[in-house]
Amino acid sequence: MVNDTTFKKKDALVVFSGGQDSTTCLFWARERFRSVEAMSFAYGQRHRVELESASQICKKFGFAHRELPLSGFAELGGNALMAQMPVEGKGPLGLPNTFVPGRNLIFLTYAAAYGYQKGIHDIVTGVCETDFSGYPDCRADTMIALERTLQLGIEIPVKIHTPLMNLSKKETVELARDVGALEALAFTHTCYEGQFPPCGECPACRLRAKGFLDAGVVDPLLARSHSI
Amino acid sequence: MVNDTTFKKKDALVVFSGGQDSTTCLFWARERFRSVEAMSFAYGQRHRVELESASQICKKFGFAHRELPLSGFAELGGNALMAQMPVEGKGPLGLPNTFVPGRNLIFLTYAAAYGYQKGIHDIVTGVCETDFSGYPDCRADTMIALERTLQLGIEIPVKIHTPLMNLSKKETVELARDVGALEALAFTHTCYEGQFPPCGECPACRLRAKGFLDAGVVDPLLARSHSI
Repeated sequence: MVNDTTFKKKDALVVFSGGQDSTTCLFWARERFRSVEAMSFAYGQRHRVELESASQICKKFGFAHRELPLSGFAELGGNALMAQMPVEGKGPLGLPNTFVPGRNLIFLTYAAAYGYQKGIHDIVTGVCETDFSGYPDCRADTMIALERTLQLGIEIPVKIHTPLMNLSKKETVELARDVGALEALAFTHTCYEGQFPPCGECPACRLRAKGFLDAGVVDPLLARSHSI
Repeated sequence: MVNDTTFKKKDALVVFSGGQDSTTCLFWARERFRSVEAMSFAYGQRHRVELESASQICKKFGFAHRELPLSGFAELGGNALMAQMPVEGKGPLGLPNTFVPGRNLIFLTYAAAYGYQKGIHDIVTGVCETDFSGYPDCRADTMIALERTLQLGIEIPVKIHTPLMNLSKKETVELARDVGALEALAFTHTCYEGQFPPCGECPACRLRAKGFLDAGVVDPLLARSHSI
């Protein structure tokens, strides 16, 4: 792992869902930047519990946190992460019906716009190409194109950091351990069904379990589930 | 003017503010595409009258119209087109304080996301580099980068059409005349002060007046103002 100290004079804004990946990014950023702020989006997601996780983690672990309401997606409607649809099946063009078109593009553009006003030009996102579930807005080529668009369109030297882009789920768990994020992962939300203890059966739960298994680490979320 | 018939089998979505430029685009698109839909954004803009213009024009001239509420910008706050600030002065980095950072990027990304669901991949916007007032999200290089980002991030063959990009205000008035938009321009809103009759003094009013003067066309908005 690169022990990069060049960011120590800069501040970072982490796009923060309250899930495993963005929580890992939050602690990754804390190790590297002078200060770290988290930004969550209330976009009409299926499970309000995600936002509660985000808020709880920021409070417990001392991160500044801002929640931005985005009404647009709920109005557009029509996918399984927001409406009352089953999370199986395909949407238009064969993408999973959990695909909210343009979601990460919108989140990162708002983050950059907020950063413009606060003088923060380093944006961190937990998108990952390796396990991207078919979401095209998680891929490296998309992020590179978006970074260029934001640099041109907002006229700021914005940099999009994607520390998980090329990691397997196993490696993401190892990174979480290395940056001291494991304790916080006990409070993250992953389950598509919005359950706590997690359902263990949905694609998101299964992917998470495999990562911890492969890394040989006990998922602190499960430990917490069993303790209640 | 190119009499392009290749779009006749395709549908277009016009990002529609209810102003002079996007109204001209609406009629430009009607000449070229099989069907045209207009999309407006209620983003907390200073003047609700813009949205009323948009709605009125679509009703009078028979365009399908959708208004999408976007709460994010109002939450971010801090510029003269939304808050109660004077429209003179500079924001951060020397851009005019009427700059809403990322605004056109957000509008076009939502339009593309909506288009994804409806199978509409041709998006039309009235951005213009010639009179761009210092807004970096109106420039051709930004639009080209955004188009690529949307193609990658939403996985659709989206095309961003910018018919006014290289036109002077004079040429935009001439185009409006040629595509039959003049009658509709009587109902457009331009004035930054939100007044009707328009104030005639703000930068937006002055730019509009110069365009009509140079083209030798009487502004139908002024004719309408005098008739009441």
